[in-house]
Formats: sequence, C-alpha cells, structure tokens
Amino acid sequence: MTTDDLLEQWRARVEQALEAALPAAAQSPQRLHQAMRHSVLGGGKRLRPLLVYAAGRCTGADIARLDAPAAAVELVHAYSLVHDDLPAMDDDALRRGQPTTHIAFDEASAILAGDALQALAFELLAHADVDPGIAVGWLRSLSAAAGAAGMCGGQALDIAATGTGQDQAGLERMHGLKTGALIRSAVHMGALAGSDDAAILDGLDRFAELLGLAFQVRDDILDIEADSATLGKTAGKDQAQDKSTYPALLGLDGARQYLVQLETQMLHCLQAHGDNADALRALARLAVHRRH
Amino acid sequence: MTTDDLLEQWRARVEQALEAALPAAAQSPQRLHQAMRHSVLGGGKRLRPLLVYAAGRCTGADIARLDAPAAAVELVHAYSLVHDDLPAMDDDALRRGQPTTHIAFDEASAILAGDALQALAFELLAHADVDPGIAVGWLRSLSAAAGAAGMCGGQALDIAATGTGQDQAGLERMHGLKTGALIRSAVHMGALAGSDDAAILDGLDRFAELLGLAFQVRDDILDIEADSATLGKTAGKDQAQDKSTYPALLGLDGARQYLVQLETQMLHCLQAHGDNADALRALARLAVHRRH
Repeated sequence: MTTDDLLEQWRARVEQALEAALPAAAQSPQRLHQAMRHSVLGGGKRLRPLLVYAAGRCTGADIARLDAPAAAVELVHAYSLVHDDLPAMDDDALRRGQPTTHIAFDEASAILAGDALQALAFELLAHADVDPGIAVGWLRSLSAAAGAAGMCGGQALDIAATGTGQDQAGLERMHGLKTGALIRSAVHMGALAGSDDAAILDGLDRFAELLGLAFQVRDDILDIEADSATLGKTAGKDQAQDKSTYPALLGLDGARQYLVQLETQMLHCLQAHGDNADALRALARLAVHRRH
Repeated sequence: MTTDDLLEQWRARVEQALEAALPAAAQSPQRLHQAMRHSVLGGGKRLRPLLVYAAGRCTGADIARLDAPAAAVELVHAYSLVHDDLPAMDDDALRRGQPTTHIAFDEASAILAGDALQALAFELLAHADVDPGIAVGWLRSLSAAAGAAGMCGGQALDIAATGTGQDQAGLERMHGLKTGALIRSAVHMGALAGSDDAAILDGLDRFAELLGLAFQVRDDILDIEADSATLGKTAGKDQAQDKSTYPALLGLDGARQYLVQLETQMLHCLQAHGDNADALRALARLAVHRRH
C-alpha cells in the first residue's frame, strides 16, 4: 500500500469514528445534535487524526487503538473553530467552504455545540478499549493541550496581540499554544499507543513542534496567496485585522525560506525511524506544500 | 465533629483545591486567567463538591482522594454558568452577587474562560493520585454528565422550550439533564472512590436524582419568593422569560408539597447507610430549605 493510500484509509477510518461518536441528528435535542454534526462533519483536512495514526504507525501501535484519540483530537479542533468563529471572537461566516455554525444555526447553538464537542472528546478517550494507564496518558495530553496552557491560552494571546505588532518570539509562542499544542498532542497520543520510551516520545514531540510551526507559516502565506474559494474561508483576513504574521515579519520570500528550513529539520527528527515514519514524512510535506 | 463542621471543612478543602488548580492571575495570558478565577472563585454554595465529599464519606473513601473530583465538578459547573450567562444564551449580568464574567471582562474572554475551565476539570481528574481505573471511571462519569446527553443537552432543551408551555414530564427531563446530570456525577464520583458495589452505587444514584429534582423545584420557588439581593442573581427572571417552572405547573403550594415528598424519598434512599450518610442528609435538607 502506498503512503497516499494509507492516508486515504485513515481519513475514512476517522470519518467513521466521528460519525459513530456523534449523537444522531434525529435524536432530541435535535438542534444541538445537528449543530454538533455540522461543526465536525463538514469536511476538513483531518490533519490531526492523520497525525495520530501516523505517529502510532511509527511506534508500532495497533491501529484499532488509534480511532479514539484520532476522533477525540478532531472533536477538540472542531469545537475550537466553532467558538473562534463566533461574533465575539474572530466573527467569521465561512469555514471549510460552509457557513460557520453560528450562521447555519444561531449563536447559542454554536456555543453549546462547541461545549458538548469538547466533553465528547474526553468521553471518547475515557471509553477507549485500552489499558486505563494509556487512557489516562491520552487524557492528560489532550486536556492540557486544549486548556489555558494550550489552545485556549493561545487564542487569548492572539486576541490580546491583534493590532500590537507582535515580534517573532511572541508570534511563535502564540501559535505554539493556539495550534501547536493540539498538533503535539495528536502525535503524542498516537506514539503513546505503541511506546513508552521517553527518547522516542521526545523525538517525535520535537517533530510535532516543528510541524505545528510549519503549518502556521504556511497558513499565513496562504492567507495572502489564495482566494477565498480555494481556501474555503475568508482570505486576506489577517491583513484586514492587522494581525502579526510570518510574511509581515519576514517578508513573503523570507517566510517561504523559513518553511524550507522547517521541512529539513522535521525530516531530520524522523531519520532514526526509517520506513516506519513514511506517513509522518508525507504529512510534513502536506503541511508545507498544501494549497488550502 | 458535627456535620456542620464537616461541611465547613469540606468547603475550605475545595476552595484550596480550586485555588491550587487555577492558573495564577499574574501569569500570561493574564486576562484569560483572571476571567477563569473570577468565574470560579466568586463564592457559590459549592453544593456539588460537598456532594462528592459526602458521598465518598458514605462509602468510606479516603478524603484525600476526593479533592480532584470535588474541584473538577465545580469547574464544570462554573464554566456552564459563564456560558449560560452570555448575551446569546440567558443574557444575565449578575451571578452570585457579582457581575457575570462577560460583564466583568468581555464576551470573548468569557467564552474562552469557560472553555479552559472545562478542559481543566478533565485535566485535574486525569492527574489525580489514584488507581487509573478509578480516574477513568470519574472521567467517564463527568464527561457524560457535561455533554450532549447531560448538561449541554439540558441547556439546549431549556432554550428550545422557552415560551412553549412545557409540561411536567418535559420539565423534569430538561432539568434532569441541565442540573441533574452533574449532581448525579458528583455523587457517583464520590461514591466510586470508596466502593464499586453496584447496589450501593445505584442507591446513591437514585438519591442524587431526587436531590437534583429537589434543588430545581426549590430554585423555581426562590425565583418567585426572593429578591435579587438575597438571591445574588436576577430574581423573577423565569416569569419575565416565560419559562415553564414547577410553581407555574403545580402552583406555589403544590411545588412546596412536592419538595416535602422529595425530601422524604431522599431520606428513604439513605436509610441503609446509617450515620455514614449524615452529611448527605444534611445536604438534602440544604437543597430543600435553602434561602438562596
């Protein structure tokens, strides 16, 4: 099986796991359940679930063990988009080419759907058919990544920094929390399902840290290069909101060169793993070269 | 030690556990951390943590084991109040005699603080110094109680029912999820720390179900009887919003009689436990007779 086939198979697996985890649209309270499904099942790259599967493959984890953390990390990601898109936050009407949840439903439903999706993520992990020690390890990782010292803290820093002309160190700290923490948790949870070797886990964590950074640099470049139709969300928003970005700090060419450096460093982190890391290498390429 | 002294001691314990769990106000991102602290440390009855300690005492659990679930259930309760008070939800400016979080800070901070508090609740449980099997049991209980089949589902039913003249069955289903699920989880987590006997856990769960109901009936009565100063939140809100309530369905006297029945049934559930259930009995009385 080629790596591309593998990624395609994992995408199908996580869609199935998400579908199975979400409450039925016809079941009461319908509007909440529909808003939850709209928030999660509207497409998306599924980068974080793919990272769970790829990191698990790298450490030799049983694939059946990986569905729960793969779906859980995507639920947290999806809920964060729903809340970030709210009028009081980034006020965005378009996401993955679809109306955002508060536009398709209403603000109260979007707030509640996000809240319920977060709870569902932890519920999935707590019910996973694994040794309780592994489940607790996953729960520690994902809860820390989602909270004030992770994703929520990063979003707070992002809001605080808008219009302040943040420097590169501030920008990296913000993104390290806002998007990096969840990406690192995805890799950590996958790896943990197959290994408890601290050196292996640390090496993959460094890879994940670089990947999170690369993902964000590419995001900032795409915000300038692409139009809204390709991007599936409002393009040019960073500039319009006077947000600090890598192209603004380093120039567009500088940001592209930085991305090349990050790719080299990522591949270096994976050297010791040989073929077992092919899927992680493919995801690194995807983060660096993606068009949307 | 009298039961009142015991409750007082537990209140102090959970305040300490919450203080220790919350990020420092001076630490970046400050505004998020301050909003989280405002949302949790602004007083409150701490009924749910007290239920954790009292249920744990009933099953002979080590008190040191109970701090994590006691603080975790209060964090979930506190976050739910922050989100329920938002303009898009119940739009309330006053809570526990203090400005609500979105008034004291801003809407974005209130949304994020709530999100981070939910994550923190699960993080606390995942780091508790207990057998991983017990931690996973707690995490299953609290995540289910917080999510779409629990608290979030109940809030969605509440919003959907406003102005529709809901009947008693609908009202009990709504409250059973909105406030009942978390109260049951508090009792379940406390009990689970000391026992895995299904008959004992089921009996205490029935007690908790009745307590949740009694708590809500009393809430509806207080909304009519009390003024805002005593209540610490806006009084008369249910009528103003045309919400279905127990006094509206049963009359004020009927609601009071229903409360007396519930108290009798609660005490019946605790009979087998003798003195070990004295604190649970005290909390049942508190729920039924409280003035705010």
